[in-house]
Amino acid sequence: MTDTRFGLDRSATLGALALDGGGTLAQVQIAYETYGTLNADASNAILVAHALTGDQHLASAHPRTGKPGWWARMVGSGKPIDTDRWFVVCSNVIGSCMGSSGPASIDPATGRPYGMAFPVITIRDMVRAQEMLIDHLGIDTLAAVVGGSMGGMQALSWAATFPQRVRACVVLASAARHSAQNIAFHEVGRQAIMADPKWRGGAYYDVGDPPTAGLAVARMAAHITYLSEAGLTEKFGRKLQGRDAKTFGFDADFQVESYLRHQGIAFTDRFDANSYLYITRALDYFDLAEEHGGHLAGAFRGTATRFCLVSFDTDWLYPTAESRSIVHALNAAGARASFVELSSPYGHDAFLLDSPELDRVMTGFLEAVR
Amino acid sequence: MTDTRFGLDRSATLGALALDGGGTLAQVQIAYETYGTLNADASNAILVAHALTGDQHLASAHPRTGKPGWWARMVGSGKPIDTDRWFVVCSNVIGSCMGSSGPASIDPATGRPYGMAFPVITIRDMVRAQEMLIDHLGIDTLAAVVGGSMGGMQALSWAATFPQRVRACVVLASAARHSAQNIAFHEVGRQAIMADPKWRGGAYYDVGDPPTAGLAVARMAAHITYLSEAGLTEKFGRKLQGRDAKTFGFDADFQVESYLRHQGIAFTDRFDANSYLYITRALDYFDLAEEHGGHLAGAFRGTATRFCLVSFDTDWLYPTAESRSIVHALNAAGARASFVELSSPYGHDAFLLDSPELDRVMTGFLEAVR
Repeated sequence: MTDTRFGLDRSATLGALALDGGGTLAQVQIAYETYGTLNADASNAILVAHALTGDQHLASAHPRTGKPGWWARMVGSGKPIDTDRWFVVCSNVIGSCMGSSGPASIDPATGRPYGMAFPVITIRDMVRAQEMLIDHLGIDTLAAVVGGSMGGMQALSWAATFPQRVRACVVLASAARHSAQNIAFHEVGRQAIMADPKWRGGAYYDVGDPPTAGLAVARMAAHITYLSEAGLTEKFGRKLQGRDAKTFGFDADFQVESYLRHQGIAFTDRFDANSYLYITRALDYFDLAEEHGGHLAGAFRGTATRFCLVSFDTDWLYPTAESRSIVHALNAAGARASFVELSSPYGHDAFLLDSPELDRVMTGFLEAVR
Repeated sequence: MTDTRFGLDRSATLGALALDGGGTLAQVQIAYETYGTLNADASNAILVAHALTGDQHLASAHPRTGKPGWWARMVGSGKPIDTDRWFVVCSNVIGSCMGSSGPASIDPATGRPYGMAFPVITIRDMVRAQEMLIDHLGIDTLAAVVGGSMGGMQALSWAATFPQRVRACVVLASAARHSAQNIAFHEVGRQAIMADPKWRGGAYYDVGDPPTAGLAVARMAAHITYLSEAGLTEKFGRKLQGRDAKTFGFDADFQVESYLRHQGIAFTDRFDANSYLYITRALDYFDLAEEHGGHLAGAFRGTATRFCLVSFDTDWLYPTAESRSIVHALNAAGARASFVELSSPYGHDAFLLDSPELDRVMTGFLEAVR
């Protein structure tokens, strides 16, 4: 049934999707990749959910940057998410800009890009669109949904929204709600984009001159939150950029300045400013307890899904306390849950980086699921 | 000798100042306020040094905002820095925008505002300008230099640069160097300002349309670092702004968004964007150890100055570890130093807020100095 080429890039045109905000997307487009082979009873499918600025290019080269897939170290033949065993699906979330329906898509009502006429979406809306994709692929039950950061929120939302369709749930470096500080950092990013005159109220697609300066500042601010203070000190400290002494000017004197500027500018080559607005909004709106009468345990009552949670000790974006509160709720709901805090100098980004401990956790948990 | 009116607003035109960066400011202008009365032997003078966006309006109303002075709770008759006993001086740092020489000042070479032709300055340059002011006021030795945040860096730089002229040094919520993370946050703010087309390479003074959007974003990003995650959660959590439900739009739905936007916009009424660039640069360049052959203790060898350091447990901008490393250096240098970490939910800003413990530390230390 499924093409077995590695990293098969696909797109599906699905039906209408009713949104949490009240509107409807008339026709959902989902760009996705698959890896491995779906078995005869369609029981070996794993959905990997990506983070804020991630995409479906999980383990094969990104078409714009040429860089390896964002989780190539985790997903592949003989890797912790072993594509010799599992049929792995990764889809671009709605609201994003890599082929799934988002603000750059054509609004059928006008024949022009949505821009800010695109409806505000939620994490649960992303998950509902993924469920439509899973139907489309002929998969009834996912062996697992796996994700870090915003991907972990999608995994939690999957387990809460479609408990019959997900046997296991892996949640890395994530949270069940956005804190005031999380919202505050995102608001800085949004204001940076909206302050750029080239943003033009979101209607910049036809002009060919997008708000890259604002988007770069947004990315710089966010990027700091992905790294730990200790990690920044270890990597950069106060080292100067290719010179022996301070210039007493405003060029990038320090390596950390140069690094951040590069991160900001490079990001604008691969990401759409409006998508950044919509996805950060979805993150800020995320509060799984609120969706269940204020009680996080209510999201998981009676579930048969097995959970695996991992946090990192230097992650200050979604600190260990957030994972712990999820585990407490899972315990209260009587769910099967394992939890480990791993040590890493790399802060929030640790879940994307080489970590033999994380590999062992992932391998062991998926083996138990199988 | 000195006018005894409370909060006397003054300005002094001083001589030339040779700068760390190699240039010279031909004529240093310093705006300052004084409180209390200088005694006959000029032995009761305390210099209070302000933080990044502070000013000389220490304990009297700000002329633009009408708000009370930024440390009115600490400085006044019967307060911990008791103006019945002490002659208190607070001067606007060079580089700033409240009357001291800065990028908005007239460049004598051109007859027009300096803009980015203003020389890059250092914390030590600020302190050297203050020393000229102290000479001007007829004060040989300061009883104390007191400051929080960047003010604490000036206090440390005073003790290291003019050890004979400062008997005591109070350093609150500060550090002896800017970390990579500190630099990174400042670089985001600078890039936000410079990305604003109204910045015009710093030459916006004659246009009458300053880069307020970029400056507001810079302030929002910085403001998050002044507050603790727990403090933000306690104050705002996920509370919505004057409505019952999410709007599924991009207005300020959450109170924390509204608060941050207000902080950003209000800041632009009282602060100059170029000054923000220059002062953040001075902070990033600050590394007291580097000025003394890489050894912080070398900055204080043989000093007779007494030191009092205070940190706050939720301050993640200049965490307790930074104060502790200063104390270790002072101990290694054989200096007299006391140190306390205070508990507060308010993060870095705690030094500006009501804190009976801080009041007791300040009162006790200054009593011992007297």
